[in-house]
Amino acid sequence: MNSKIKDLCKLLRYDVITSTTAAGSGHPTTCLSAIELMGTLFFKGFFHFDPDHHESILNDRIIFSKGHAAPLLYALYHAAGLISQDDILSLRKFDSVFEGHPTPRFKYVDVSTGSLGQGLSIGVGMALGIKTKIQMSNVKIKREPKVWVLIGDSEIAEGQVWEAMEIASHYKLNNLVAILDVNRLGQRGETMLGWDLKTYEKRAQAFGWETIVIKDGHDIEEIKNAYHHVDERPTTNAKPTMIIAKTIKGKGVSFLENKDNWHGKPVPKDRLEEALKELSKVNLKVRGTVTKPKLVKGLELRVLGKTQNSQPSTINYKPGAMVATREAYGDALVTLGEKNPNLVVLDAETSNSTYADKFKNNFPERYFEMYIAEQNMISVALGFSKLGFIPFISSFAAFLTRSFDQIRMAQYSNGNVKICGSHAGVSIGSDGPSQMALEDISMMRSILESTVFYPSDAVSAYNLVYQSMSTSSLTYIRTTREKTPILYSSQEKFTVGGSKILKQSKNDDAVIFTAGITVHESLKAYEELKKEGINVCVVDLYSIKPIDSLTIHNLVGTGRDLSLPKINNVIVVEDHYPYGGLGEAVMSQIKDLTSKISFTHLAVNKIPRSGTPEELLAYEKINAAAIVKICKGVLQYAPTSLKKTVTAKEQLTA
Amino acid sequence: MNSKIKDLCKLLRYDVITSTTAAGSGHPTTCLSAIELMGTLFFKGFFHFDPDHHESILNDRIIFSKGHAAPLLYALYHAAGLISQDDILSLRKFDSVFEGHPTPRFKYVDVSTGSLGQGLSIGVGMALGIKTKIQMSNVKIKREPKVWVLIGDSEIAEGQVWEAMEIASHYKLNNLVAILDVNRLGQRGETMLGWDLKTYEKRAQAFGWETIVIKDGHDIEEIKNAYHHVDERPTTNAKPTMIIAKTIKGKGVSFLENKDNWHGKPVPKDRLEEALKELSKVNLKVRGTVTKPKLVKGLELRVLGKTQNSQPSTINYKPGAMVATREAYGDALVTLGEKNPNLVVLDAETSNSTYADKFKNNFPERYFEMYIAEQNMISVALGFSKLGFIPFISSFAAFLTRSFDQIRMAQYSNGNVKICGSHAGVSIGSDGPSQMALEDISMMRSILESTVFYPSDAVSAYNLVYQSMSTSSLTYIRTTREKTPILYSSQEKFTVGGSKILKQSKNDDAVIFTAGITVHESLKAYEELKKEGINVCVVDLYSIKPIDSLTIHNLVGTGRDLSLPKINNVIVVEDHYPYGGLGEAVMSQIKDLTSKISFTHLAVNKIPRSGTPEELLAYEKINAAAIVKICKGVLQYAPTSLKKTVTAKEQLTA
Repeated sequence: MNSKIKDLCKLLRYDVITSTTAAGSGHPTTCLSAIELMGTLFFKGFFHFDPDHHESILNDRIIFSKGHAAPLLYALYHAAGLISQDDILSLRKFDSVFEGHPTPRFKYVDVSTGSLGQGLSIGVGMALGIKTKIQMSNVKIKREPKVWVLIGDSEIAEGQVWEAMEIASHYKLNNLVAILDVNRLGQRGETMLGWDLKTYEKRAQAFGWETIVIKDGHDIEEIKNAYHHVDERPTTNAKPTMIIAKTIKGKGVSFLENKDNWHGKPVPKDRLEEALKELSKVNLKVRGTVTKPKLVKGLELRVLGKTQNSQPSTINYKPGAMVATREAYGDALVTLGEKNPNLVVLDAETSNSTYADKFKNNFPERYFEMYIAEQNMISVALGFSKLGFIPFISSFAAFLTRSFDQIRMAQYSNGNVKICGSHAGVSIGSDGPSQMALEDISMMRSILESTVFYPSDAVSAYNLVYQSMSTSSLTYIRTTREKTPILYSSQEKFTVGGSKILKQSKNDDAVIFTAGITVHESLKAYEELKKEGINVCVVDLYSIKPIDSLTIHNLVGTGRDLSLPKINNVIVVEDHYPYGGLGEAVMSQIKDLTSKISFTHLAVNKIPRSGTPEELLAYEKINAAAIVKICKGVLQYAPTSLKKTVTAKEQLTA
Repeated sequence: MNSKIKDLCKLLRYDVITSTTAAGSGHPTTCLSAIELMGTLFFKGFFHFDPDHHESILNDRIIFSKGHAAPLLYALYHAAGLISQDDILSLRKFDSVFEGHPTPRFKYVDVSTGSLGQGLSIGVGMALGIKTKIQMSNVKIKREPKVWVLIGDSEIAEGQVWEAMEIASHYKLNNLVAILDVNRLGQRGETMLGWDLKTYEKRAQAFGWETIVIKDGHDIEEIKNAYHHVDERPTTNAKPTMIIAKTIKGKGVSFLENKDNWHGKPVPKDRLEEALKELSKVNLKVRGTVTKPKLVKGLELRVLGKTQNSQPSTINYKPGAMVATREAYGDALVTLGEKNPNLVVLDAETSNSTYADKFKNNFPERYFEMYIAEQNMISVALGFSKLGFIPFISSFAAFLTRSFDQIRMAQYSNGNVKICGSHAGVSIGSDGPSQMALEDISMMRSILESTVFYPSDAVSAYNLVYQSMSTSSLTYIRTTREKTPILYSSQEKFTVGGSKILKQSKNDDAVIFTAGITVHESLKAYEELKKEGINVCVVDLYSIKPIDSLTIHNLVGTGRDLSLPKINNVIVVEDHYPYGGLGEAVMSQIKDLTSKISFTHLAVNKIPRSGTPEELLAYEKINAAAIVKICKGVLQYAPTSLKKTVTAKEQLTA
């Protein structure tokens, strides 16, 4: 009765071996251990998927968390008749969408994997998203779509997997199924637990999961029974399921089976024949059928309705009033949430500090507490975003550094994730350096296609949360713990790549580029200097990435707008370490240095400590007094240094 | 019989409450739940510590992983008579070493905590370090020093805690004791498990730990029995121990006890009297005694003997030979390891790719497999370093982004940790973007006091591993997957902050600053351009941080060395995204832009994909052909653009 599925598994093995040998690289042995597990899932009616409506929320999802098994993933779609043999043989080629690790460049792939241990968290986001959408749609549905995640036994060492485990049982995600491929061998040898299925089972159960053990992960009958068990569970059983299968790495080719030193190595061309012979007769024409889900009115598409990037509803922050930008973040989430049913909010146990709790109090059904597990939070948000939700996530900016790898990977999944990091900079004061984000601008700028905002007052913060909705990319909003005075009227417009010139005169001696809390220090400095007859231009670069290149060029005299006065003395002030932040962002814009510019960068240059915000801004020399001092110094010394060099040049050319 | 310890606990409560109220911020309720647990540990003879020899390896270690309980930590040393009441009342003040979260500025603190979930991993490193040193010293010892880690029940949601749990049992660390303070309440409400001690116990046991449950974490008798049980375990029992104690947040002050919304809030001044009254009579003079460990010859100090930063032993990489820099990393570890008994090596399941396995094969007793858990690896290395070891750790550079928070925190612990990230850049080829480190330079530069090296050939790589030994700071070495030709002779010297001018003439039209794989592309470009009569200067900036500011200034004409020709056209080429990398590092050095400079930055500007290294370097326009093209373009257009601006200036001044 299983002869066809056996033929299909032969084809999968054939494709995996031939495609990796043709590519000259890849991980065939990792694929071979999961052939029967995946072949049975796809072609015995357990995985529900409609290729003609792959946007539909009614489809099951499959995530290869062990992304290096990509050749098997592609082979499955070949065996399903959705891609060709030529596609299979284009593996890892530059012009092919069939990359070394899965990416959404192949249309049936939702998310990029390959940095291990992230897939289950993404699955949690999708499983939660499916339940959320069905609940919001008030549609009765017979079979809830499932999210299947293939996990490797090496990657389960990643703590993030256990973050996903604990949160999946907490949220009762009985539509989430993890398939643990226990092939015993990692890249350089045996895993911590080898084939100790009992311990894997104990751990999964302790984390609130139902477990099903498959003693022989290559026995189709045993695998079928496991999947049947999952299908036939009463919906009252609210636990997620982990299928723990003992498999053999390299299964099917004797000289690869359960051997060390074959990880990430294809079968050499001169042994290909020997390997293929072991598959015996392969029917290259056999094709399997994937069960299509029944269409259900009101649940055709992932997206929940058009996102409205309309103008911010008017807010009444009174000019001069003291409001923290982090509070404006919460205010904006609430008004945005009213207009956008797709908007969901996640926070890592800090919602009463980030003000995400304002949204929680208004839309509890769209707020998801992620507890203190930032890595999982980012990947869960990615899962939500791939179903058409727009997730806003928040924590202390310092702790988001923990999820840099997940943020990095989210970009390769085209994840539309909005991140807010609060309590940025030394200005948080007495909690000390562990709580101060001083590398976060650098981190978020380094993501190639990210957008980075750093508002200085509640009005700009509120508006920039709206702006972040209008971008389809990863967006980062840096907020401040301290209350700061309102600078802008509620009519003021803020744009991606914009800036605000707060102070300017026809005879400015210097220009101060800054953002966030130091905008206020710069304005105080402006007043001080003005008393002494020194004019400085003050610019709020609230959009750190993309940065307002035109305004910078025009002001420093490298631009082409001749109506503006040119300023040679540039000062950048930021509450961040000197590397990769606002200072370097400004420098990187001054490409053609065809005018004489003196550049001074005030940033956090000493390891901070506990103290008051005022003491720390002074200690790091990024407060008003330091700005005043530096401006005077620059204006005093600039001419001299200038003169020196001119002489030097004269001497040279002499 | 427990009257004195009860008096001491009263004093601890008094100090916690008064110090946080005096500071006007802090987390008293978090401290109050752990008073009896810590008071009994310190003053009933379980914690062995000699304040006069706090460098001794014979001391037990205590890590407050729940760093926000710092006021309790300080109170313990006050109750031990080691610090004064004034010290306690200086909590969180700018000039005090008693910060909001513990830092080594207070001499009895080993590591900074406050980013939750890291303490247990650090404890794993210390427990492993203690066992390693005792084993290497061949000294018989009656009582093995213990490492005690106080963990909060909120932070146990962090996956890193479970990475520490699995590795601690894997390495049989029976000298590691975790004390889980289950006070039920996190910052914004109840934890996932609340007071469900059973589930905590099941999880810890499933991860291979022995567990002891304390039903009343404020009952000194029950706590004593738990610690006695730990002390009296047969040394044949190889399991680490977790003490799981049910406690009450805010214990001792009725209006704080088990209440929401008191996290991170001190008792208001106007309720201080009311709170203190509940402590009844406090004896401010009572002092407890901490048991001192017996001195053991040969084990007085943490450090294992002087580190030898001697010259690299001669290596014979033949000029022109093809050797990957990652392989040279392994070679250097071996020769360094012969001279330095303090050197230990950790890797996250990639040792056969990073070449850390060369060290493993030579010094198995000093190599520690960390499996696929990068966060834990960094914190374990920090633990080792605080005992005087010098840990070198490695993985794919892309995956080290996962441990950014742990690296960030290591700097606040003055951790002497050496990190090697391999497989950097798009030049790894067909594995695709998930495996490519393109943000790692930005990440490692952003750490305030880090050193960052990016060698281009095996000779410089080998030498820079030696240089990293000579720094006492966090050091990062970026290595390349591909084999690259040997450029340097084995006599060549490489220094922190150095560079190599590889090509230079008296009439160079442009200078190319680069590092790593693109050094070779730049040299190919140099030859191409030379054929066409264009001279370019090529500089290998192998020390990205600190960067060779003097050479940059001298070459681009902002320096003072008049013997060198001045070059106006600057080109930076790097296999990294454009943000926070080499390009911005160079820009940030050109502070006084008093000469006319055209700056061109070649970096990875498109999301990469699978392909050959050659295809990807071409796709991203960072290969020789792209450099040749850009050089010609720059030289063609520079004069024009220059002229334009001059005109603009003339118009302005007119």
